[in-house]
Amino acid sequence: MTGGIGSSDPVSESGLGFRNPRIQRLRRLVSRRDERRESGLVVVEGETLIREAVAAAWVCVEEFVTEGASPVTDVEPSWVSAGVLERVASTESPRPNIALFKVPEQRGLTEVATALVLDRMADPGNLGTVIRSAEAAGFDAVVVTSGSVDHLSPKVVRASAGARFHVPVIEADLDELRTEGFHLLGTSSHQGDDHLNVDWSAPARLAIVVGNEAQGLPDDAPVDGWVSIRHAGRAESLNAAMASTIVCFTAAERRGLL
Amino acid sequence: MTGGIGSSDPVSESGLGFRNPRIQRLRRLVSRRDERRESGLVVVEGETLIREAVAAAWVCVEEFVTEGASPVTDVEPSWVSAGVLERVASTESPRPNIALFKVPEQRGLTEVATALVLDRMADPGNLGTVIRSAEAAGFDAVVVTSGSVDHLSPKVVRASAGARFHVPVIEADLDELRTEGFHLLGTSSHQGDDHLNVDWSAPARLAIVVGNEAQGLPDDAPVDGWVSIRHAGRAESLNAAMASTIVCFTAAERRGLL
Repeated sequence: MTGGIGSSDPVSESGLGFRNPRIQRLRRLVSRRDERRESGLVVVEGETLIREAVAAAWVCVEEFVTEGASPVTDVEPSWVSAGVLERVASTESPRPNIALFKVPEQRGLTEVATALVLDRMADPGNLGTVIRSAEAAGFDAVVVTSGSVDHLSPKVVRASAGARFHVPVIEADLDELRTEGFHLLGTSSHQGDDHLNVDWSAPARLAIVVGNEAQGLPDDAPVDGWVSIRHAGRAESLNAAMASTIVCFTAAERRGLL
Repeated sequence: MTGGIGSSDPVSESGLGFRNPRIQRLRRLVSRRDERRESGLVVVEGETLIREAVAAAWVCVEEFVTEGASPVTDVEPSWVSAGVLERVASTESPRPNIALFKVPEQRGLTEVATALVLDRMADPGNLGTVIRSAEAAGFDAVVVTSGSVDHLSPKVVRASAGARFHVPVIEADLDELRTEGFHLLGTSSHQGDDHLNVDWSAPARLAIVVGNEAQGLPDDAPVDGWVSIRHAGRAESLNAAMASTIVCFTAAERRGLL
């Protein structure tokens, strides 16, 4: 908090400025998947989400706090000059706190009995929403296949409303799930059993597979069966996030997870 | 299709230009609720949604088509110069077709047995999504209370994926529903019966009430009972759209609407 001698900008001299290397790394962590992968760090923006990460026992390694605001974590704050986090944040209305958390080591599939699998889901808002559904329904894990949007992107974390911290997200492909002994049920708009008729409780290990939001799952996807949502109204009436919510809650009820 | 003598822009002389009064009215219809109310017209953007409106027997009164594109409706097209609809549309990636449809006369509540009621819902994306859920679940109507976002805004129509054309949306307040003999069940994050234990089929006339997405329904809302979603995970784990989807589909199943 000491100003540099001869600094030309008395307002910003005490906190980290936009060109500070740590701020520049933060900026890359917000926007770049490879930077997140290499560092093993995830960016969490705003007091509410930071508190969720702490509550889920994620480890905070650095908290950036705009001067004048209050820190949220117990970590020694990195004070940042006014106006800097606005230029770094992923949101349109940035918050005065941004924290870096260590990504926990990926869990294995061994202890997972009920999983929601997203196959090449592309939109971060959708991925965040379905993570939220799976967590609310008490699923053991969310699985994302290669080709999916990064589940550690700040947009996914935000769309999940913090659920991302409370449910493990595992990267695996459909073949790996089959090898692990999961019964794979693909969701479809046009084939398979009605979701109210499926025997959700029968498979000891159940993986419900939702496809890409634009194309759905291909008809030759390596699944053991198909399920579609029984509905009134028009054929294409539900989107991937709504369908996931309905299927997760129906399966959770029948499997005694609620 | 005749160019004005002395027109300085040979490319745009044949179609309607940005300053044409009909284009300016279209622009106001996109952005202004009062203009939509006074005219009784709704703006439908893009081929897919226009086809949905036609399929639902809504009446098209004018279709604007960018020169070089094909009309979608049977109405004599109003040709528009290139680049004009981009400046008028509500979307970031505008389509070459925009049509005006007559809003059907508001239906009464008389024939409605199962309704989803949105009380002061503020976000057009949320309102569109819950209209979509209600339609997919086979509800007879969606009711919006005064203070809700305009259900005829282009954003609502788009977020509903065309469901807006297939389910009646009725403007009414909670007291009117009570007077009409509806059993009002308010959704809550913290009180009332578990959604799996509610006797959904008992009320002859059922109105499920969902509150504003930020504040929820006030505890003193004039409802006959409360319902909350049974869930695992954290307390505030579902948003208004997800909760509406789950409640609509559970009620629809139990009321034999699916």
